[in-house]
Amino acid sequence: MTQQGFTLWLTGLSGSGKSTLTTALADIFRERGCSVELLDGDEVRTHLSKGLTFSKEDRDINVRRIGYVARLLARNGVIVLTAAISPYKDIRAEVRAEHEAANVPFFEVYAQASLKALSERDVKGLYKKALAGEIPHFTGISDPYEAPINPEVTVHTDRDTVAESISQILGELERRGLIGRGS
Amino acid sequence: MTQQGFTLWLTGLSGSGKSTLTTALADIFRERGCSVELLDGDEVRTHLSKGLTFSKEDRDINVRRIGYVARLLARNGVIVLTAAISPYKDIRAEVRAEHEAANVPFFEVYAQASLKALSERDVKGLYKKALAGEIPHFTGISDPYEAPINPEVTVHTDRDTVAESISQILGELERRGLIGRGS
Repeated sequence: MTQQGFTLWLTGLSGSGKSTLTTALADIFRERGCSVELLDGDEVRTHLSKGLTFSKEDRDINVRRIGYVARLLARNGVIVLTAAISPYKDIRAEVRAEHEAANVPFFEVYAQASLKALSERDVKGLYKKALAGEIPHFTGISDPYEAPINPEVTVHTDRDTVAESISQILGELERRGLIGRGS
Repeated sequence: MTQQGFTLWLTGLSGSGKSTLTTALADIFRERGCSVELLDGDEVRTHLSKGLTFSKEDRDINVRRIGYVARLLARNGVIVLTAAISPYKDIRAEVRAEHEAANVPFFEVYAQASLKALSERDVKGLYKKALAGEIPHFTGISDPYEAPINPEVTVHTDRDTVAESISQILGELERRGLIGRGS
């Protein structure tokens, strides 16, 4: 094994920058010669969870599946980046526990941004629709989001730049010995 | 990357020895220091496909999911062994095509055994029940099995010993350069 695998689990509201961060991190890790897989919420829904709704039960199933695949990959030396909203903390805790039972590091990153900021930015126009009641089960509006209590890192994506958030995440990964010092 | 990843896809009727073969192969590869993951039909159903039935549509979804996870692992240097009945040849062909598009070797092994031999052996008593009409969608009895036309290897598990089948598979893997010569 040339590399320590781990799962970097990004959680946060829609539009909080999860995909932006995981894409940027994936590029950095690949440049360093690491094996990387990105399990994006939408991609995983297509491949593993087609037909599931956004009810709590179905969201939980989706998150468990992402956790299962992430764990398989990470225990084989892959750096796995996930970017699903994953709003419920009990299921995130379950995925963490399964990683720990398999001796696979689980590194939770909370992409924090205020609902106000996200609604104002609203890149995809989803918040507007959700606030108008047009999207049922919309996390943060008509569906709960349970913020992590003790994540490995919290990045403030409504305040800091992408570069600042990335730097913060890399710093903590290095401090924990999950990646080497950047070149 | 210290190792070439690939997917070794075992297909065959219930009781044809798929799990026996993949378990034995996994041990051999691990002894040689390779990263190995075994995606067994039942385990995958629990983690990725709970709630799916044995209709053609649902079987296809299950097989596609196994194929997706296998491909992710194999392209990161893992030897992936799958042991799902995977009765339909169009879906196996689809999984093969996706592997090839990602430059991941796909190695199909057909565990061939006659229905007569399987019904007589009937370790789990399933054939008896299926023949009595108690199990709907039972592959080979009340559901079709489409044998591979051009698998990388066909092993005859109703005639040969496990050791003979293993030797045949390893020989072909070596011939294709997917594994080194055994020590």
